[in-house]
Amino acid sequence: MANKLSQYYAPTLKEAPKDADILSAKLMLRAGLIRKTASGIYEWLPLGMRVFRKVENIVREELDKIGAQEIILPAVQPKELWEQTGRWEEYGKELLRFEDRKKAGFCFSPTAEEVITNCIKRDVKSYKQLPVVLYQFCIKFRDEIRPRFGVMRSREFYMKDAYSFCETEKSAEEWYKKFFEAYNSIFTRCGLKFKAVEAESGNIGGSFSHEFMVVAKTGENAIEECVECGYLASDEKAGKKCPKCGGKYKSTRGIEVGHTFKLGTKYSESMNAKFLDKDQKPHPFIMGCYGIGITRVVAAAIEQNNDENGIIWTKELSPFDIHLITISEDEKVLAQANLLIKEAEAKGLTVLWDDRDKQAGMKFKEADLLGLYNRIVISPKTLKEDSLEYKARDSKDATMWKLSNVKTKLNDLT
Amino acid sequence: MANKLSQYYAPTLKEAPKDADILSAKLMLRAGLIRKTASGIYEWLPLGMRVFRKVENIVREELDKIGAQEIILPAVQPKELWEQTGRWEEYGKELLRFEDRKKAGFCFSPTAEEVITNCIKRDVKSYKQLPVVLYQFCIKFRDEIRPRFGVMRSREFYMKDAYSFCETEKSAEEWYKKFFEAYNSIFTRCGLKFKAVEAESGNIGGSFSHEFMVVAKTGENAIEECVECGYLASDEKAGKKCPKCGGKYKSTRGIEVGHTFKLGTKYSESMNAKFLDKDQKPHPFIMGCYGIGITRVVAAAIEQNNDENGIIWTKELSPFDIHLITISEDEKVLAQANLLIKEAEAKGLTVLWDDRDKQAGMKFKEADLLGLYNRIVISPKTLKEDSLEYKARDSKDATMWKLSNVKTKLNDLT
Repeated sequence: MANKLSQYYAPTLKEAPKDADILSAKLMLRAGLIRKTASGIYEWLPLGMRVFRKVENIVREELDKIGAQEIILPAVQPKELWEQTGRWEEYGKELLRFEDRKKAGFCFSPTAEEVITNCIKRDVKSYKQLPVVLYQFCIKFRDEIRPRFGVMRSREFYMKDAYSFCETEKSAEEWYKKFFEAYNSIFTRCGLKFKAVEAESGNIGGSFSHEFMVVAKTGENAIEECVECGYLASDEKAGKKCPKCGGKYKSTRGIEVGHTFKLGTKYSESMNAKFLDKDQKPHPFIMGCYGIGITRVVAAAIEQNNDENGIIWTKELSPFDIHLITISEDEKVLAQANLLIKEAEAKGLTVLWDDRDKQAGMKFKEADLLGLYNRIVISPKTLKEDSLEYKARDSKDATMWKLSNVKTKLNDLT
Repeated sequence: MANKLSQYYAPTLKEAPKDADILSAKLMLRAGLIRKTASGIYEWLPLGMRVFRKVENIVREELDKIGAQEIILPAVQPKELWEQTGRWEEYGKELLRFEDRKKAGFCFSPTAEEVITNCIKRDVKSYKQLPVVLYQFCIKFRDEIRPRFGVMRSREFYMKDAYSFCETEKSAEEWYKKFFEAYNSIFTRCGLKFKAVEAESGNIGGSFSHEFMVVAKTGENAIEECVECGYLASDEKAGKKCPKCGGKYKSTRGIEVGHTFKLGTKYSESMNAKFLDKDQKPHPFIMGCYGIGITRVVAAAIEQNNDENGIIWTKELSPFDIHLITISEDEKVLAQANLLIKEAEAKGLTVLWDDRDKQAGMKFKEADLLGLYNRIVISPKTLKEDSLEYKARDSKDATMWKLSNVKTKLNDLT
């Protein structure tokens, strides 16, 4: 059952709202992917939601593959736990604090090291139960003083956060590597050009970290790459540490979409979270944490892939596989459209059908704005040639597909 | 790749914590499905999470089928919108209110009529764009004065809320019916015994509503059923309205898991949300709203299906399809286990393998507590008979499966 654009809640805009301050935000608003509810707080509309779920599913599949297990931690977290690590004071005003009706202190989770460490401290007593590796998709809140760049630096956002608890340094490093590789698979599967750079650990803490950067001219971070040995670092890191080879850096721009941290025992020690080794001696868990900004990935994909007409989705993230445009209400056109949809769906391809009674030019313009990976046009003119017109969003040229050949051609899109 | 219990984060408890006040909460805590973070606030651990996602996926599939479209609305919602309908004042202390760093007023969403009505008011201008039917899965918060019954009456919870916006009464009623039928499909697919009763609308408002009740002796609501005509009502409703036939009610217990409301124009009028009809005349949108407590469904399923030994999952909600127990580390036992897993997974069946070095009796006890739908035991004893042992959780008797016959037998479990 194709989704008809006439019945689809994808309200497009000719002009982006004035306060949209970055290309991806402008395009997401214009294409009806998101809307702003309040400063730094957004609604995700159906087209945006489909991309969101695609990213989420890729992340889930890759983390399940390495043996991480899914949980959900609370968004509303008790003050007591944040006091144990000192972050209740340290975190600053970005931590949204409030009281419940009984005047107990809580915060809206911007990250979850305290709560997860408390879980493991409570449930895991012995080295035999280790490693424990968990992840969640959960809404987060960071009360930015100046929310900007649309969902890129919003206050409310969705993050996948994962945590590993290990017995030994060796095991902790193995898990760090597994996540590192899973992240490579995730961003590769999303169809994005990205680089993993060595980075500083910031207010999460820990001894070692990498940032995963989507390459984009408009990125707010610098990616420093040594021209001699190819060593990659964030600009902050590059300022403190030269590549071993002593070579020079060249700089490109990137958008941070993931961050892996080797935490060590920072949280387990401050929260007194320990396990017993085989000689019944207590040790603090050796931790790692691993984040991916799900909502950020969607915006970064757009920053990387667009042209003057709109979004260019990668094949993997395209909200639907095919944008079908019919021109005229001609019976033959409609019949051919229904047949195409049937054949596409039989191959597992999803279709958004622009069935509206609008001018062809306007339909083409909107198709470019929405940026679905494949576009197919059926009109009396194409049918006169026993054909339909196919165009990939990232290509300039359309080609004609003979109707007799459509099934085969659709195979190439799967 | 089977999940091995030795590496699975499913911390079971011999005794439920003292403050667990209802059977499902006791079993969910004992079986390691959930843990309490603070009063009315819970963590969902991997086994619980798998059931949660199964419910979520069933709900999503059935709502997609009727043509509803998925979105996500913010959890943090601005005071201004709630003031427009008067609910900022009316809602009472269950509405968790707070200020951001700039002293702007917000609440944690317990429901989203205001925000969604604001969306539609902004984006939908013409009758041509109607109906619009949207749903979301999002975390909610209701600051209950006395949180109890585990995740059944928690403060933080996950709900699927859906909203329909229509041009005419007729269309509004059609959508109400579509949701009513989708809800029937959803709870049927979950494998639950349930009844849909006519109900009062409470603080959501509107003219007409139904509650979907999972039948359970321990339910906190009464289901009133007319012995003559079979008319079903909530106890509150039954007190105000007799069945047309004039018959008497008989009472059973139920747990509310879903609620459908014919809202009419309550919200669209107070928020001045209007569309233009074909004569360019403005009318308020005719609304419906439809909730399912995802976390509540999991608990209700347990209240309905359990015995003195633990949970009895329905086939559809079982966190894994098969609970595999191996007894002894015998090479032949392990080889047979690996073969079984391979064959089961080839058929799309998921396996949780109790591979731990524990006593058989203790493994059986835990299998009963976790309550997976199918249990398979492989031991030197069963292999001596060229067999493995199969038992459904809801049956008293185990049967032996000849190894040569396992593939066929597994087909019956799909």
